[in-house]
This record gives sequence, structure tokens and C-alpha cells, in this order.
Amino acid sequence: MTMRARVYVTLKPSVFDPQGRVVADALHTLGYGDVRDVRQGKFFEVELEADDRAAAEARVAEMAGTLLANPVIESYRVEVL
Amino acid sequence: MTMRARVYVTLKPSVFDPQGRVVADALHTLGYGDVRDVRQGKFFEVELEADDRAAAEARVAEMAGTLLANPVIESYRVEVL
Repeated sequence: MTMRARVYVTLKPSVFDPQGRVVADALHTLGYGDVRDVRQGKFFEVELEADDRAAAEARVAEMAGTLLANPVIESYRVEVL
Repeated sequence: MTMRARVYVTLKPSVFDPQGRVVADALHTLGYGDVRDVRQGKFFEVELEADDRAAAEARVAEMAGTLLANPVIESYRVEVL
């Protein structure tokens, strides 16, 4: 059956996030001085054919490790909907 | 106190997502023929000073509508952690 899963990819905490830095600076300029820090990540919503939730989760975790995330600098989390 | 919130930004369903298309094609090429569709989005983890959860949520929703998302083609969801 057709299932949906989400993969959330974030830079590891030790990796500098220049995009997040720029967003934080822009928010400060716009008057949001209460912002302490911003980190940016991406996510993928994957629709796939799978037998059950466990199969879908395993399959999508494999895709995440192979293509969607760079395991050297990024970590990911898979959520089956 | 310091609170954390996440903003998830996605293209509206009617908007074509070329990045997601490319990822889906790449997954097919890698042998993941069970993938039907992929849509890509981004998220922001915002750390801010706020009095309580409700205040943090309102404040971050305002940032999302102003800077983090483009309301013409994107929708967003705020989650206070």
C-alpha cells in the first residue's frame, strides 16, 4: 500500500550553520531581538509503496543514509505518518 | 525564559516542487522504484526569549509569516518544544 514518511535532516550540533546565522541576523534586523539562535534544516516527504509501517520506515531510513543526508555532517530522523 | 520552537515550511500542494522531483528521480536511479513521490521542505529551529509557550508560539508565527516563509507559495506550521 501507499505510505507516507518524513525525513528530517539537520546539521550536527558541532557543525557551523551559516544559513541559520544569516536568518538570525535578519530577524534581529527586523526587530526580533528576542531570538537567541536559529538553525536551519530540511525535510523530505516521501510517498512510497510498502507492506507495512516497519518496512516503510526501514526503507526510508536506508534512503536517508544513502542520498537524503550526508552522515558526515548531518543527522536525520525518520517518521512514518 | 529561553524556549525552542520549530517552523516547518512546505510548498503549497498546488506548487510544483522541482527539488523533490529531482530527489525522486535520483532515488529511482538508485533502485528505489517503490518511491511514488517526494516533496522537499525546510525547517527552522528558533531559540528565543519568551514569557510562556503561547507568547513564544505567537512570536515565532509572526517571524514565519514575515521572513521564514513566502505565504504566496508556501505554508508553515509552528511547534513549540
